[in-house]
Amino acid sequence: MGSVFIAGDWGTSRLRLYLCDGAEVLDRKSGPGAVGAGLAHEAVLFELIAPWIAEHGPLTVLLCGMVGSRNGWVEAPYVACPADAAGLSAQLVRFEVQGCAIGVVPGLKAISPRQAPDVMRGEETQVIGALSVLPHLAKGRHLLAHPGTHTKWVQVEDGQIVTFQTAFTGEMFALLSTHGTLTNLAAGDAADLSDGFAEGLARHERSSASGLLHELFETRSRQLLDGWSPAHAVNFLSGLLIASDVAGALTQFDSAGGPITIVGDPSLSERYRLALARQGIASELLGGEACALAGLSALFQPQAESAPS
Amino acid sequence: MGSVFIAGDWGTSRLRLYLCDGAEVLDRKSGPGAVGAGLAHEAVLFELIAPWIAEHGPLTVLLCGMVGSRNGWVEAPYVACPADAAGLSAQLVRFEVQGCAIGVVPGLKAISPRQAPDVMRGEETQVIGALSVLPHLAKGRHLLAHPGTHTKWVQVEDGQIVTFQTAFTGEMFALLSTHGTLTNLAAGDAADLSDGFAEGLARHERSSASGLLHELFETRSRQLLDGWSPAHAVNFLSGLLIASDVAGALTQFDSAGGPITIVGDPSLSERYRLALARQGIASELLGGEACALAGLSALFQPQAESAPS
Repeated sequence: MGSVFIAGDWGTSRLRLYLCDGAEVLDRKSGPGAVGAGLAHEAVLFELIAPWIAEHGPLTVLLCGMVGSRNGWVEAPYVACPADAAGLSAQLVRFEVQGCAIGVVPGLKAISPRQAPDVMRGEETQVIGALSVLPHLAKGRHLLAHPGTHTKWVQVEDGQIVTFQTAFTGEMFALLSTHGTLTNLAAGDAADLSDGFAEGLARHERSSASGLLHELFETRSRQLLDGWSPAHAVNFLSGLLIASDVAGALTQFDSAGGPITIVGDPSLSERYRLALARQGIASELLGGEACALAGLSALFQPQAESAPS
Repeated sequence: MGSVFIAGDWGTSRLRLYLCDGAEVLDRKSGPGAVGAGLAHEAVLFELIAPWIAEHGPLTVLLCGMVGSRNGWVEAPYVACPADAAGLSAQLVRFEVQGCAIGVVPGLKAISPRQAPDVMRGEETQVIGALSVLPHLAKGRHLLAHPGTHTKWVQVEDGQIVTFQTAFTGEMFALLSTHGTLTNLAAGDAADLSDGFAEGLARHERSSASGLLHELFETRSRQLLDGWSPAHAVNFLSGLLIASDVAGALTQFDSAGGPITIVGDPSLSERYRLALARQGIASELLGGEACALAGLSALFQPQAESAPS
């Protein structure tokens, strides 16, 4: 029974729990996000996993994400890059609750004289998962992108996360498409990738030297002058932001001529794939949820090895 | 009495009215913004100016700003660049109300194959005012900046507004400093220009190639890692945005080696002056309200000349 454990991706908005036997998922459950004043993390977790404990006895529970932040359950301080699965596993914050060994995955920090300090929490586990899903990433230099509220660009060398950089792209899109004067769209994204998106990608290529602040206003001026619909404007905005994000990342990082691995939500990953393809760069896409689970499994292995000591 | 007229700067948030005799201001009043469903522009205006009409009889009223937008009182369609005081004056939208000749100043549009289409409404009058206040701008090539919610960079040649570009800087600052995860500051700006502002300017110089989306997250990571206060973070954010705006503008426009004229709110103009000074570029600052009044006076002159016809 040593191979049965519980993997949990406990982010800001949701808890995803998996009962695993090695790489096999026996069962899954979901619960509320990890951050909130007075959230009783222990009670939330153990109510959900009670049936699994009843069947299997006390289990190791491995948790990643905002559950380990200052405002989560137990703070798991940021670990400095470079980092890999073995290193992160050794830095798990471990404690015991109701007979179960809990391990909380630390976030990562990137500190270097040539860039601003940066942090991630949760994505590191997905990157570790991607490295275990795609074994060819274990050798050489690779670039991973994790698009989302805060897009993470992660440079990997010989299986180590050597550095990374956060782009504010997703949150910027959410702010600009629901607040302020650029678009009138009440909520979120346009329904499909109409030509507005490609127009945004193309616009950034033509005018990138002037910078995003000078590019953004076209979203508004075209609605005033050319009758763009709000949906078209929002797709244009999405294209402009993602092209700007991609171009900025490629000035800092590279994939040594190989494809870039994009980990995350499929429809958002597809937008990044299109933006990279315009630069002549191929991508391979991996689902974020599957990578989180694979990452937690990878982090569980070394722990299991050290358990007999 | 032909030199007495009423000048009005009727923007989104406020109406400023001046009773003028040539360049002299005899009286002033203020009222509500020009945009709002069902706003009775005529009633609002004539209640405020009734005492002036009672004393001087029917007067010409010259209005600039959002009062001429699609959602204002009467739409004054955008006039294409190049434009100057005589051209704008000829394109005033004129009508008569209660015996008074009303003139609404049109906005400007910049349409060119090499840049995104752009629009302004209200700032054109301040630029015309700046040109009348600083006669040396009437010859040669000059660059004016009008910082604000939407910063306008205006290229002037031989007294003509030849083109311009809008940067989303002020609205971006407002969005990022009051919404989202970058800062915790509940409302607006930090109290003073502490070193965070210069740090933001300097950061952009070091990392501009990666673009704003990659630079912004430092505002957050430094609060997490280095204990930056929210006020420090907000000043850093302001420096980053203004440096990015200035750098972008200087890729498109130039002041032919001379100083850049900054028209607007004094404390915001000072931030732009500091950012330009770091690039070795001198500035001269003019108050926005004074320029609006000077611009309306300049636009009134040609109208008066044509009145006897």
